[in-house]
Amino acid sequence: MQLTILSLLLLAAATDALVQDFCVADLSLPATPSGYPCKKKVTEKDFAYSGLAAPGNTTNIIGAAVGPAFDAQFPGVNGLGISIARLDLAVGGVIPMHTHPAGSEILVVIEGTICAGFISSFANTVYLKTLNKGDIMVFPQGLLHFQFNSGKGPALAYVSFGTQNPGLQITDFALFKNDLPTELIAKTTFLDVAQIKKLKAVLGGTN
Amino acid sequence: MQLTILSLLLLAAATDALVQDFCVADLSLPATPSGYPCKKKVTEKDFAYSGLAAPGNTTNIIGAAVGPAFDAQFPGVNGLGISIARLDLAVGGVIPMHTHPAGSEILVVIEGTICAGFISSFANTVYLKTLNKGDIMVFPQGLLHFQFNSGKGPALAYVSFGTQNPGLQITDFALFKNDLPTELIAKTTFLDVAQIKKLKAVLGGTN
Amino acid sequence: MQLTILSLLLLAAATDALVQDFCVADLSLPATPSGYPCKKKVTEKDFAYSGLAAPGNTTNIIGAAVGPAFDAQFPGVNGLGISIARLDLAVGGVIPMHTHPAGSEILVVIEGTICAGFISSFANTVYLKTLNKGDIMVFPQGLLHFQFNSGKGPALAYVSFGTQNPGLQITDFALFKNDLPTELIAKTTFLDVAQIKKLKAVLGGTN
Amino acid sequence: MQLTILSLLLLAAATDALVQDFCVADLSLPATPSGYPCKKKVTEKDFAYSGLAAPGNTTNIIGAAVGPAFDAQFPGVNGLGISIARLDLAVGGVIPMHTHPAGSEILVVIEGTICAGFISSFANTVYLKTLNKGDIMVFPQGLLHFQFNSGKGPALAYVSFGTQNPGLQITDFALFKNDLPTELIAKTTFLDVAQIKKLKAVLGGTN
Amino acid sequence: MQLTILSLLLLAAATDALVQDFCVADLSLPATPSGYPCKKKVTEKDFAYSGLAAPGNTTNIIGAAVGPAFDAQFPGVNGLGISIARLDLAVGGVIPMHTHPAGSEILVVIEGTICAGFISSFANTVYLKTLNKGDIMVFPQGLLHFQFNSGKGPALAYVSFGTQNPGLQITDFALFKNDLPTELIAKTTFLDVAQIKKLKAVLGGTN
Amino acid sequence: MQLTILSLLLLAAATDALVQDFCVADLSLPATPSGYPCKKKVTEKDFAYSGLAAPGNTTNIIGAAVGPAFDAQFPGVNGLGISIARLDLAVGGVIPMHTHPAGSEILVVIEGTICAGFISSFANTVYLKTLNKGDIMVFPQGLLHFQFNSGKGPALAYVSFGTQNPGLQITDFALFKNDLPTELIAKTTFLDVAQIKKLKAVLGGTN
Repeated sequence: MQLTILSLLLLAAATDALVQDFCVADLSLPATPSGYPCKKKVTEKDFAYSGLAAPGNTTNIIGAAVGPAFDAQFPGVNGLGISIARLDLAVGGVIPMHTHPAGSEILVVIEGTICAGFISSFANTVYLKTLNKGDIMVFPQGLLHFQFNSGKGPALAYVSFGTQNPGLQITDFALFKNDLPTELIAKTTFLDVAQIKKLKAVLGGTN
Repeated sequence: MQLTILSLLLLAAATDALVQDFCVADLSLPATPSGYPCKKKVTEKDFAYSGLAAPGNTTNIIGAAVGPAFDAQFPGVNGLGISIARLDLAVGGVIPMHTHPAGSEILVVIEGTICAGFISSFANTVYLKTLNKGDIMVFPQGLLHFQFNSGKGPALAYVSFGTQNPGLQITDFALFKNDLPTELIAKTTFLDVAQIKKLKAVLGGTN
Repeated sequence: MQLTILSLLLLAAATDALVQDFCVADLSLPATPSGYPCKKKVTEKDFAYSGLAAPGNTTNIIGAAVGPAFDAQFPGVNGLGISIARLDLAVGGVIPMHTHPAGSEILVVIEGTICAGFISSFANTVYLKTLNKGDIMVFPQGLLHFQFNSGKGPALAYVSFGTQNPGLQITDFALFKNDLPTELIAKTTFLDVAQIKKLKAVLGGTN
Repeated sequence: MQLTILSLLLLAAATDALVQDFCVADLSLPATPSGYPCKKKVTEKDFAYSGLAAPGNTTNIIGAAVGPAFDAQFPGVNGLGISIARLDLAVGGVIPMHTHPAGSEILVVIEGTICAGFISSFANTVYLKTLNKGDIMVFPQGLLHFQFNSGKGPALAYVSFGTQNPGLQITDFALFKNDLPTELIAKTTFLDVAQIKKLKAVLGGTN
Repeated sequence: MQLTILSLLLLAAATDALVQDFCVADLSLPATPSGYPCKKKVTEKDFAYSGLAAPGNTTNIIGAAVGPAFDAQFPGVNGLGISIARLDLAVGGVIPMHTHPAGSEILVVIEGTICAGFISSFANTVYLKTLNKGDIMVFPQGLLHFQFNSGKGPALAYVSFGTQNPGLQITDFALFKNDLPTELIAKTTFLDVAQIKKLKAVLGGTN
Repeated sequence: MQLTILSLLLLAAATDALVQDFCVADLSLPATPSGYPCKKKVTEKDFAYSGLAAPGNTTNIIGAAVGPAFDAQFPGVNGLGISIARLDLAVGGVIPMHTHPAGSEILVVIEGTICAGFISSFANTVYLKTLNKGDIMVFPQGLLHFQFNSGKGPALAYVSFGTQNPGLQITDFALFKNDLPTELIAKTTFLDVAQIKKLKAVLGGTN
């Protein structure tokens, strides 16, 4: 079959009228429920991100760092229903009990040994696994879960989400790192006032 | 325009070939990610539910009761992306800090005065409101929230969800009403061991 | 375990970079298919609404009032896939035959006795129930339904939707309260011209 | 680059473990909210359908016929969120006022001239267009609409839906072709009893 | 039942506060992941489109033309999850191997005979059908497919999609009608360099 | 506040009636459009997977291996809208040009240097990046893309998807590793017959 540029361009013209098949976030415009408005001009740089390449700083008491590549950090995932984060865990490090308001999570261990678990809302059943290098684990949407380094060296993992903006609600931060009144926390968690005040002091909570 | 039964039935015949436009749950079959398989024969009874008509028993220490009409209790909502629950709060009663793994929630106060709040995962901001009869409040998906009776008489509210199966994860139950080891709770919540053991004793947790 | 503010803030810093986990409508900006753009600054007032607290005015011939809290009235539900409305029905009052273009509906009776029904598109089957205080009923998406006070006193109900903007298409209004030509209505509904003109006169329709 | 069967098959083996990327309906099993369970063995016949090739019988008083290819008739669309139907309209023929409980619709005129319209739930605005061969029109989800042959010869159109099961609720059938009591129709539509009885007689309704 | 304009308008007032139940694209504003922002003022013209009425120009070597009515061409479909396109195929004409990045497709043959096929990602199975006037075929989301005129006269078909913006990726254009380096194409497709250069020359590709 | 087991159990009883908040696939039952039916009994083993821990065998001519953890391999992701795969690339190895019929993809480089790219359906624009250890890249849904080892040592990456079953359609396999007739491939791809036969011979295609 013989082909000529001239003739194929007639078909090409039709397809050139079509629109972008992605929507890199323009973070300068107001977000919408489906994500940010789309940036007009994009390059290959919009689809790659090096912000997770360097290890997070784990020289803190929990010995852990979370590096997110959600839409606010990595505008290329806007509208695509996917995102990723890096977890660094020093020896003894822990990602405290938390939930993500949206989306399920898959974790893959890159280095070290991680003990991870989640708690089902059904009968409060606990699902707990020790994961070695290359192991993966899935955490169903919206459930309390945690990860900690149960090995003898540092640990590294990546966690992926089926949403561009999973959010991250660390239970301790939600309870003790704000101005939620101590009396109200006691009333809704049954924790002792002394315990609440102790954690507020550590985390900078008031009231 | 003159019409005859005979002639219109020809059109009717085509539409009679169409399928049901709802899917009442057949709870005897295995569920799927989108809900339960559909019951073959349905009547008007499948779409109504009286299980929330009677007040819940609030003669317990938290002075509260939750009556769900999710798909497991009310099969008519299966596949429809909606459900409802009844909250009864005695004087001083409280629905403890909790999340729903799926779906946002709207609360409407029917009787009494309810103080309700939720905590955003963004900067741990607390949104707290005192609600009177007829007031409504919305709780965005997946965030920690709570309600308590802040009035002088009993309170009643209905909460609706944009899903047929929101789930309910009460933080205290998730932490202390199962076999999650005390050491592990301490490590992932920074709570004192004594505090954990105290609540485990109350809620029946082991380990 | 000893904790210090300094060390935990290193982890906190990462999470402070995350974005809002809700999207209160900025009604001054153009809507999108997923809802309105998000308001930048929100307070607890954005998540509560008192507009449904007062009974609707039912001193009209249908003896009924509908008070919506959809996204246009209650911007806090924007993007959350949920909304609510209040129904007041005087003795003999009726919410006429209608559909919602989007979303299923759950009704809960707060006061009085309501007869409600919907019509399936499959074989035109009617599902009809008399509901008392505390009873709930579900109306599957997009189907014709109605409610009327079948008791001896006033009735009150709340209806919830699995969408922030269900819409409301009252069949009589759609047919007779606009400029749809009488001849065209007759042609597409088989109603007599006299009947159409009578209802147009009542509802203010022209043509 | 030299390639050998042997070596590529190693990669091929991995991909052979993957599952089907479609889900042809097995209509013998109970449906679920997302559609029917998938048929195990499929052939090319499952993806094509000739049931709409022949014109529908329009020798009835409305001069119209609807031929659906929804999941119940064409199992190949199951789970794909799309379906189609054929409309035949004799001279003067009309598809009466109706809604689809789910999904928006696009109509394309193949032959003849069709007048089509829909009514918005917002201010009851009517959108009315006369369409000629090759014209298309879109009907937003859940709104009352109709089509009639406004030309001098027969008309043919195809209508597509963004769902595998749009349903079809013809208002007249929903009101008058079942056992919905006359008194109840009068109460909820404001139609005269005589008008209701007249249409019930035509359509075979009782009560 | 007697009705008066005055009384019904009280109910009407409530419903007049509701918002639009569609979202015609304002193409002058930045798109979002869910589509374009909504145009403020719409008329019936926004919901109809005549751009597909005239046959496409098939006097090119592939003997085919594609006329899309996606959101960029037909703003009325914005947010409605549906779109359509016209295919003209001269004798011997072919729509080359392609995918749509989003949405499944239904084709209906209006004139002529079309041979169409798609390739499953599961075991690379080919599903191939010859379709005559009135036949329909469905192409599951994201799979390679093609259509060609296998008859003796011109062919016409309409293809509908369950999305407002399916996109169109013609494999040959994606590979040979851009600046993707020849070496890189060879490495990732195993095609011979000579073959690649030949097609690049025809399609205007560089590098 | 004093708490007793007895009293809290009253509230607990209500929540024990709720259903599972995940749906591990029972692969022995027929799938549905939303995934497989849910397994009745699950343990922590259902949520973890070690099948990707060992490197894939890259001793083949393309020097690459793909190890999927989609729902068919890892039933724990069923219904959760997320999955993951492992890519091993020997020196010079390549994952050939391919698409996934559903879902977007995020790649993170664990070891080595990978050159990756995708082709937009809009103007056939190529987005190409060289990625080092720790870099991530996103591939929007449904677009042709590829990855190859552009470094001097072996490379390892994980790719995550926003769906439990992305599928994998390698263009070469779809065209040349089945019984799609050579003439038909030539007609729909403009490739020379000799080229097609050469690749069919390598990949085991017939016809």
